[in-house]
Order: sequence, then structure tokens, then C-alpha cells
Amino acid sequence: MTIETVSTNRAHGGTQGVYRHASAETGTGMTFSVFVPDRVAKAGGAAKLPVLWYLSGLTCTHANVTEKGEYRAACAEAGVIFVAPDTSPRGDDVPDAEDEYDFGKGAGFYLDATQEPWAKNYRMRSYLERELPEVIAAQFPMADMGRQSIMGHSMGGHGALTIGLRNPEKFRSISAFSPIVAPSEVPWGEKAFGRYLGDDRASWREYDAVALIEDGARHDHLLIDQGTGDQFLVEQLRTHRLAEACQSAGIDATIRLQAGYDHSYYFIATFMAEHVRWHAERLG
Amino acid sequence: MTIETVSTNRAHGGTQGVYRHASAETGTGMTFSVFVPDRVAKAGGAAKLPVLWYLSGLTCTHANVTEKGEYRAACAEAGVIFVAPDTSPRGDDVPDAEDEYDFGKGAGFYLDATQEPWAKNYRMRSYLERELPEVIAAQFPMADMGRQSIMGHSMGGHGALTIGLRNPEKFRSISAFSPIVAPSEVPWGEKAFGRYLGDDRASWREYDAVALIEDGARHDHLLIDQGTGDQFLVEQLRTHRLAEACQSAGIDATIRLQAGYDHSYYFIATFMAEHVRWHAERLG
Repeated sequence: MTIETVSTNRAHGGTQGVYRHASAETGTGMTFSVFVPDRVAKAGGAAKLPVLWYLSGLTCTHANVTEKGEYRAACAEAGVIFVAPDTSPRGDDVPDAEDEYDFGKGAGFYLDATQEPWAKNYRMRSYLERELPEVIAAQFPMADMGRQSIMGHSMGGHGALTIGLRNPEKFRSISAFSPIVAPSEVPWGEKAFGRYLGDDRASWREYDAVALIEDGARHDHLLIDQGTGDQFLVEQLRTHRLAEACQSAGIDATIRLQAGYDHSYYFIATFMAEHVRWHAERLG
Repeated sequence: MTIETVSTNRAHGGTQGVYRHASAETGTGMTFSVFVPDRVAKAGGAAKLPVLWYLSGLTCTHANVTEKGEYRAACAEAGVIFVAPDTSPRGDDVPDAEDEYDFGKGAGFYLDATQEPWAKNYRMRSYLERELPEVIAAQFPMADMGRQSIMGHSMGGHGALTIGLRNPEKFRSISAFSPIVAPSEVPWGEKAFGRYLGDDRASWREYDAVALIEDGARHDHLLIDQGTGDQFLVEQLRTHRLAEACQSAGIDATIRLQAGYDHSYYFIATFMAEHVRWHAERLG
């Protein structure tokens, strides 16, 4: 298990790296970024730091949040490692839906596809639940894999919620900006799930945060921020469905509507430091 | 005098806008970004806020710092308006040096060209010293043009230093990341000045921070951050020349070498909030 260092830059008293490795799950090269605060180095390499995962939205790679996410100052202060994976397999050999921004490359939806021709490469669930954590554990010895949390934006908010709700013992806290909370009920999700997973809607439920909660999934630490000026709120995101599901299930989630904010990284960057600090408190 | 609003996004409790206008100086459309903190709105439009200018480096537009600069949180907290202009005239009718990243479009060097074919459009000095401030004053009534400071990066650090040193009554403080401090003495500057300004090196001095100080320019509030891992430090930036000039002139400048940081926005973003607060103290 080896990784290639694409770049490292000193930033906010830490190291922002970009790395690449051959993924067995996706059958492709995969790129991800990791920010490691200096306090590890200062502790002589002995200190271990918790890990915060950030899953990106449609059309994004690791680069969007790495460049625009404004997370480093807060991570350096709190002593948190920040990992940002890609959103899908990549490469000329990977089947794609050209001219569709919401399906195929850049739109992996954090699931394991069961339908052809997608099933071979589109395995972002297994990649993120198993393979990449093993890579991080092996290559970043300062990472304390016993202390992990997860967050994401839009499609990545869906990813963070579903991965976190399926693995509450692994992730101490879950947060999201503008998440797709009930993909089975909205155009983005119906299109993607129908093609990746097929027509049997029962198979969609493990990839739907609202359905997971309805089916018994629970988590004690949920934080959502949603902009009221978000162009996708009504049709695709439907934040109120998560609020309803949490209320029915007795989950004490914090779901905040932020007046005037849209779907962009300007919104994410505004509340990023708050999310990092909120996770850091729960990561100890 | 009208401007077109390209986009506005709510961000960090303020408004990040991108605007476009027809410039008489450059004879082209020019794009710039402005961040206005909310506290103006809260004060019912009556409060006026100081203005901090940020000049970008080679190859950049307004967008680089707007997306990657991490200035908004600090500007919102301090109540400072942040203006980021483009680095040169743009458009198909503007003469360019194709395949040269360090001359022509994206490389205006904040001067008024005197040589053909550059003299007509390449008038970034007059654009920034006169025209754009008038546009800001007219279109942003909350901007207090009696309280301005200026900063920049690399070629924009050169711009901030030279514009600030020539207009100390207008700019209360000057700061820079990785500035070109003595362009007349380094390859980037010799190439640009020779072609924009001609062979008479005496005409270069008003566009050279070290030469301006040697010729009598003074400023009481100078802050420079320079990364020691900057690939351009030895050949193009030569920070020590500014330190020498300030010492000879009795200028009490703060010139800091930041260990391990490079020339990128990772470096700028790391120290941006500190620069904004430093300017804000001097802007009152």
C-alpha cells in the first residue's frame, strides 16, 4: 500500500498535502488531500490527532474544499487532521455520462453501484468505509483512527449523513452543509440511484439519511447548516424532511437555517470554523 | 459612471460582490470584487467603513484572492471593506504577449506604459490611483475614502508598495506578501519595465519601491511577510533589498521571514487575517 505525494504546502502552521494512490475498490487512481497540524511535529511524533472527513458535492474533486473551504486555521487550533477525498472514480476507462453534471464522474453519490456498467468502478461506499481509512491509518501514523468524525456538502452532506448513520460507533459526530437528506425523494437521487442501484427502491434505503432514520439508525451528534437562499433547497435538498425524521425518531439534531446564504463555498467557508470546533469538542 | 453586478454571495455576515465597469483609463471592461461587511447595513447605511485594497500577482485576476484569500472573516469582524481589482486590461483588442505569463495580460505591473503598443491600454497606475477609487466612492456610499490602506502579493506587493509610497497621505498603511521590492534589479521587472517603459532606467524609479525610498519616499506603517520556502525569493523578490533601503532611510518597517512557507495562496491565507487586523488598527 503506497501513496504518491502530489504536492505539499505549508499552511496555517501545518502541512496541506495532496496525495494519489491506486484504489482496489474503484480500480482507478484516486486523489485526496490531508491537512496535518504542526502540533504533531511539536509533540515529537508521539501525539495522535483525531480525523475529520469532508465529503464534497456534485462536480467537485478534493480541490474545491482544499482551496476554498477555510478549514485550516480552525483545524490547526483544535489539532484536527482534515481529509478530503474525491467524489467518484476518475480516468478514461471509467464509464461516464457525458454532459450530465449529476451522474457519473464527479457524482459517485457515496454508494456501491450494483448495475452495469457502473458496478465495477463506482464503489465510493466501500472506498470510504474501508479502503481509504486503511490508507490513512497506514500512511499517517499521527492519525488516531479511534477518533473520527465526518462532514460534507450537498451530495457530500448526503454521504456524511449516510456513512455516519450506518457507522455511529466509528464516527463521533456528523455535520453537513446543504445536504441532500432524502435522495430517494428528489430528482438528483432518483436519477442516480435508479441507474447505479436499479429499480428496487428497497435497495436505496441504506443510501438515504431519512430512510435510514426511519429504519432505526440513530446518532447523538448531528449538526446541519442550510442557507435559505440556496437555489436547490426546495427541489433537491428538502431539509425539513430530515427535521421531521429526527423529530419522529427522538433524535436531538441541530438543524439551522442561515438567512440569505446560498449553495456555494462562500456559505461553507462562513460556517466551516464553527463546524470544525463543534467536531473537535466531540473528538476530545 | 455605472457598474454591472456580475454576482453577489452572502459570506461571513456580509456581501461578496463581483462587478464590472467600462474603464476610461484602460479602454476596456474591468472586473473587480468588493466585500462589504454587514455592520453597514445594521447601522442603517449611515456608518462608513474604511477601505483595504488588495493587488494580485502575475497571472491572477480578482478571483484568486476572492476565492482563496480567507480575508472575509477578519474584514467582517474589523468592519473593513475589501477591494480586489484585476491585474491588467483584458479583451481581444488588448495587445498581449502570448505564452508569456509575466508580460501583457495578467501582468500589468501597476504602471502607466509609455511604449507602443502598450501605452493605450496598460494604464493600471492611473486606473488604481484615480479611476477605480472614484468608482468605489460613487457606487459604494458606505466606503470611507478618507480611510484607505493597501496590500498585495508578489507583483501586487510591488503595486501596493509603490502606490502606497507615492501616496502616503492617501494610504494609512501598506502591507505585502512576497513582494517584488526592487523590480528594476530582477528579471521580471527588467523585462516588463523595458517593454512598457523603454530603456531609460530613470523612468523606472517611480515604479520601484527600493528606488522610491532611495529617492525620498517614506511611510510609517509597512508590514511585509515573506516565506523562506518561496521559489522566487532569491532571483525575483530579494526581500533583503527592501530591508536595506528601509534601514538606510530610517523607516521602521516590519519585515518578517516565515519559515517554510512558499509563494502560494496557502501562505497568503495563513497570514491574511493578521494583515487585515493590522490595517484595521491603523484605519481606526
